[in-house]
Amino acid sequence: MRLAKGLGLVRGARPLLGTFLRPRAAVAAAPARSQALVYEQHGEPARVLQLKDLEQAELGHSGVHVKMLAAPINPADINMIQGTYALLPDLPSVGGNEGVGQVVEVGSHVTSLKPGDWVIPGDAELGTWRTDAVFSEETLVKLPRDIPLLCAATLSVNPCTAYRMLADFETLGPGDSIIQNAANSGVGQAVIQIAAALGIKTINVIRDRPNRQEVVDRLTSLGADHVITEEMLRKPEMKDLFKKVPKPRLALNCVGGKSTTEMLRHIQQKGTMVTYGGMAKQPVTVPVSAFIFKDVKLRGFWMTQWKKDQTQNKDRLTGMILTLCDLIHKGQLTAPACTQVPLKDYRIALEASMKPFISSKQVLTM
Amino acid sequence: MRLAKGLGLVRGARPLLGTFLRPRAAVAAAPARSQALVYEQHGEPARVLQLKDLEQAELGHSGVHVKMLAAPINPADINMIQGTYALLPDLPSVGGNEGVGQVVEVGSHVTSLKPGDWVIPGDAELGTWRTDAVFSEETLVKLPRDIPLLCAATLSVNPCTAYRMLADFETLGPGDSIIQNAANSGVGQAVIQIAAALGIKTINVIRDRPNRQEVVDRLTSLGADHVITEEMLRKPEMKDLFKKVPKPRLALNCVGGKSTTEMLRHIQQKGTMVTYGGMAKQPVTVPVSAFIFKDVKLRGFWMTQWKKDQTQNKDRLTGMILTLCDLIHKGQLTAPACTQVPLKDYRIALEASMKPFISSKQVLTM
Repeated sequence: MRLAKGLGLVRGARPLLGTFLRPRAAVAAAPARSQALVYEQHGEPARVLQLKDLEQAELGHSGVHVKMLAAPINPADINMIQGTYALLPDLPSVGGNEGVGQVVEVGSHVTSLKPGDWVIPGDAELGTWRTDAVFSEETLVKLPRDIPLLCAATLSVNPCTAYRMLADFETLGPGDSIIQNAANSGVGQAVIQIAAALGIKTINVIRDRPNRQEVVDRLTSLGADHVITEEMLRKPEMKDLFKKVPKPRLALNCVGGKSTTEMLRHIQQKGTMVTYGGMAKQPVTVPVSAFIFKDVKLRGFWMTQWKKDQTQNKDRLTGMILTLCDLIHKGQLTAPACTQVPLKDYRIALEASMKPFISSKQVLTM
Repeated sequence: MRLAKGLGLVRGARPLLGTFLRPRAAVAAAPARSQALVYEQHGEPARVLQLKDLEQAELGHSGVHVKMLAAPINPADINMIQGTYALLPDLPSVGGNEGVGQVVEVGSHVTSLKPGDWVIPGDAELGTWRTDAVFSEETLVKLPRDIPLLCAATLSVNPCTAYRMLADFETLGPGDSIIQNAANSGVGQAVIQIAAALGIKTINVIRDRPNRQEVVDRLTSLGADHVITEEMLRKPEMKDLFKKVPKPRLALNCVGGKSTTEMLRHIQQKGTMVTYGGMAKQPVTVPVSAFIFKDVKLRGFWMTQWKKDQTQNKDRLTGMILTLCDLIHKGQLTAPACTQVPLKDYRIALEASMKPFISSKQVLTM
């Protein structure tokens, strides 16, 4: 049983319902099987991940057998496997933290889910890169039936992060504005769409790149009010921009370094900057005067921690998911550009997901 | 009347009740006179300040004639005269933002003050470096009669800043800890004493200096639990310190640069750092991971702005002053080390106040 640790639900407080890793020869009966991308040590994903046959765990009273349908490869998944993330599961472990699956069978004590339901993870570390798993009921969130597959597969991390950052730090209303860098990222695209649905103006900062106009056009088509390059942040022309839109009360920072300092310069008195990523691998640098005389607030956000903090109050999580599903129904929130790759071709998907200037999210399909 | 601008109450919305600058020869009657340290242009204080005879303004219905007793020289006063501060009065102006005075006479509509009362400024920019002034009632806060002169003269900036920073950012109780740099400053000493009175442990960071042990002994005698040098912040021995005291929930930063980054490293998960000064003249630098995975909050504080924000709610200000006076009565809050200098010797006081490693606050006496 040593190897089993970490392959199911890693929390000690919950019943261990996951899929156990056990050599085939040692299995007496012939229970249901699944395939999963397993890593036994940290390192480069393409090297340490292996597609393995796993024996299915017992359903038990409160287990939910889920057949996974699609699961994306996110930067946090990569860092977790590399061993550089702030949250590292016990090894061996199954990769992937996000995705959508369909309920096949439920334990006798399960009340909120039934076979046929679509579910997404309400928690990180479930290990979504596999064909089948037994999860415990409380780690799953049920989706309405008519959400498109790729929207569902990519709903629980990026759109939730965007939604919470827009909701929890400043009270924003129609006509207010926000500024964000990494506007072309998964979170950035969700921010643009959710803000547009709420009537909040967005100033979107992207890195200059060969296909800049293409990116500008795409973000504009999603509802972006202004799309500018990092260089533009430093130019006096910014004054002209602020004749059309009020100074932002909220800045969302996924980059760090110069981009952050420049973005901070344009924030409103008493405004908030929320850091949720550090793509530039440089710290956030703030002039002392911004704190004292401009009274800016600097905060951080991590969706994984937010979900942990809601363990006793799952209604907040499910409420947010339903709100986002409403936006999807209305056509106001779409999935980012995705490329579907069969699970067995995971190496191709991993390679594509680690290229710079990724313009398409790799989604494993089972 | 051109020169009068800025010498009294500089706010346009209030009656101009201050002391007017007018050549003596032009005065027909012989009204009360006062002497004041006036500057007509920004520059080095010893060069631009001049002790001038001023004609007293009319008392009017809501004016309060105050005879100033003592007024300290604070770094913000110096920066305001140099023209480098975020708040600059119209020129010419009288220097000084803090001090204590005694009411001589009140206008017919004044209800909260009477002759003999001691008062301190409830607002910046009043111009306290003078013998007499007419202030408007709402800019003054009445003190109990038995506060020692130097405590009263130095009450409205540093102890108020310390009190608000301890009260407004984290909910602290007995046994909790805070960390602060520039612990030997006026604010730092007030933080030590107020925290000790509340049972909050303090970790106090000072720069290394020739008379270090003397400073350590003095801060300890004020109630400091731990006094360490900036270098110590970087050493593994900090672990031993945190066996005796919990990690701080609140960090108070008056320095910037490395000191800030190192202090931030020791803060508790979800803790707050409040920046209220930047003695190192370097920005605040924060690793992205501190925001995302440690959820630290970075804020700023400026007493002047806080007071402005309470204009419609003066009870909060007077309530705080009375709380601080209670601590003074109980012997739990004392004035910082002060040197009293007669107003006419202001050049000596200015020179002393601008030396590095100042160990005594210069207080002008009238």
